[in-house]
Parts: sequence; C-alpha cells; structure tokens
Amino acid sequence: MSSLQPELPADLGSGLRLRRATRGDLDAILALLADDAVSAGRGDRNRADDRPAYERAFAAIDRDPAQLLLVAESADGVIGTMQLTLIPGLARRGAMRLQIEAVRVRSDRRSGGIGGRMIRWAMDAAPAAGAALVQLTSDAARVDAHRFYERLGFTASHVGFKYRPPAG
Amino acid sequence: MSSLQPELPADLGSGLRLRRATRGDLDAILALLADDAVSAGRGDRNRADDRPAYERAFAAIDRDPAQLLLVAESADGVIGTMQLTLIPGLARRGAMRLQIEAVRVRSDRRSGGIGGRMIRWAMDAAPAAGAALVQLTSDAARVDAHRFYERLGFTASHVGFKYRPPAG
Repeated sequence: MSSLQPELPADLGSGLRLRRATRGDLDAILALLADDAVSAGRGDRNRADDRPAYERAFAAIDRDPAQLLLVAESADGVIGTMQLTLIPGLARRGAMRLQIEAVRVRSDRRSGGIGGRMIRWAMDAAPAAGAALVQLTSDAARVDAHRFYERLGFTASHVGFKYRPPAG
Repeated sequence: MSSLQPELPADLGSGLRLRRATRGDLDAILALLADDAVSAGRGDRNRADDRPAYERAFAAIDRDPAQLLLVAESADGVIGTMQLTLIPGLARRGAMRLQIEAVRVRSDRRSGGIGGRMIRWAMDAAPAAGAALVQLTSDAARVDAHRFYERLGFTASHVGFKYRPPAG
C-alpha cells in the first residue's frame, strides 16, 4: 500500500506545530469533532457508549500507512486536526491522490489563519507523497469554508454525494 | 489497514458479471478511462509513454487491501469499471467510509442500467465491509450523472474541491 511519511513535526509559524496524532490525543480530537455545528448534527458528541467505536477507529487509522491523522497544537494545547489519505488510482495518468478529511479548528481559534496553514501544509506535502492531486469535500452548508478553500487555490469542480446504508 | 473482501465475482443480472480486476484487464480499463469526454480532457489517452505510470498505479491499487479495482464484463468483454476505497475515520462515531472513484461504462453500453447495477452493488456491499457511509464525487459538468446518483439514493450534500500541485 501507499505510505504517507512527511517530515513531522512541522513548524507552521506563530507557535503552531503540526504533528502525527497519538492515542493520547483522542479526547482532544473528539472534542474538536463535537465542537462543530454540522458534525454535532451527525451525532459526534463523544458519548461514553461510543468510546469503543472511536478507539477502534483511531487504531484503524493509526495502523494504515495510507492514513495520517494530524493535530495542530499551540501553547494552549491541541487546537486543530485533519486526516490525510493517500489513494492510488488509474485516472489522470495513474495519479496518486491525497485526500483531506475531518478538518477542524477549535471554535475559539477560528478565523485566525490556523486552518489555512494546516491545509497549505498538506497541499505543499502532496508532491513528496507522490500525489498529483489533492482533494476534499466540504458540506454544502459550510459556505465560508468554500470561499476559504478557493482562496487557498482549490477549485470547486465537483459535486460530493453521500449515501448512508441501513445499519447492517 | 482496512480490507475490502466482498464476495466476488458477483452476478449483476442480465449476463453482467462484476469481478476484481487483474493485470490483464489494464488495457480494457484504460480504454474505458479514455472513452470519456471529461477524462480525455485530463490527458487520460493511454499513450505509450504513460504506460509505466499506469503499470505502477495498477500495482499500487492491487497490493493495497483498502483498495478494490473492479471490472464489469458481459459476453462482449469488459464494459465497466470502478474503484472502491475503504477509509477509516473518527467523524460520524468512528465510521468507516467506502469511497467510489473512477466509475466508467463503455460508451456503446451507457444508459442501459449497467452503471446503476454496479453502484447499487457497492452500496449494498458497504455494511459487510464495515462502512457506515458511501461517498463519491462527480465532476460538476456531469449533470446526467448527478441525477443518476440521486435516483440511486445518494444525496448531493457536499462540494468537491480539487487542487493540482505544481509538478514536483
């Protein structure tokens, strides 16, 4: 499988440091996921009975060399997270794709350029990871996020479809 | 890493069979990728000097247990392809996602329900693969494809962003 091994930790400037997430960051990451109106609507509330599912998910991400879960931290702790996935493909002349998922910045630190520095780092890390394309989807309700990604150099060229199968 | 091991080959009815792609299918898959106005605009023309890149990409997909490259074949050979990727994540209560990429049906067999049966198969295979969400993006120019995915049960809830980094 493909492997994501950028140089980490990375200094993103202004006291912001990006590093691979460890098991000890799980609570902070779950707090970031819950600290978001759109995600909270999906049930990401970090309830105690969901804990085993989150633990399993963290382990699955952590052991997969095509996945990289990151946290951004400053003097006051973990304030951001994102997950990168390397996807091999035949289209676009056999281009590897770098996919960004689950981007979050702590609510009291938003609009401060933190998300921009995280995403820019991923965009810059793509060529060294062999990726000729960086892709992500953003909930249609996140209009501010769409302007943000376009300012960073992304093109809103696609429509993102989701289907939730009946529980098996 | 996560592993995609649905029961294959699958009988999709009307003489259509879905199976894991082998190295010997590469030419047929590349012909399907080239047989598409949007992809051809991206340079997917299967030129001889691109061959090593395609060979490497096929090998990367084939050895990654989180990837599954499929071909649909009927009496007249390979007429469809799609790639599935299993992506672990923390959001949505630690849900595994099943992502569908590079869906193609041979031009002379389109509008015959083949793509629908392929996608429906992936939607139905998701729970057994541990996936609580199936996702894909479709080029904004493919308006017919959007109606097609909505008819199948997908929701066009997201905007898909792409960024092509400068060649490294």
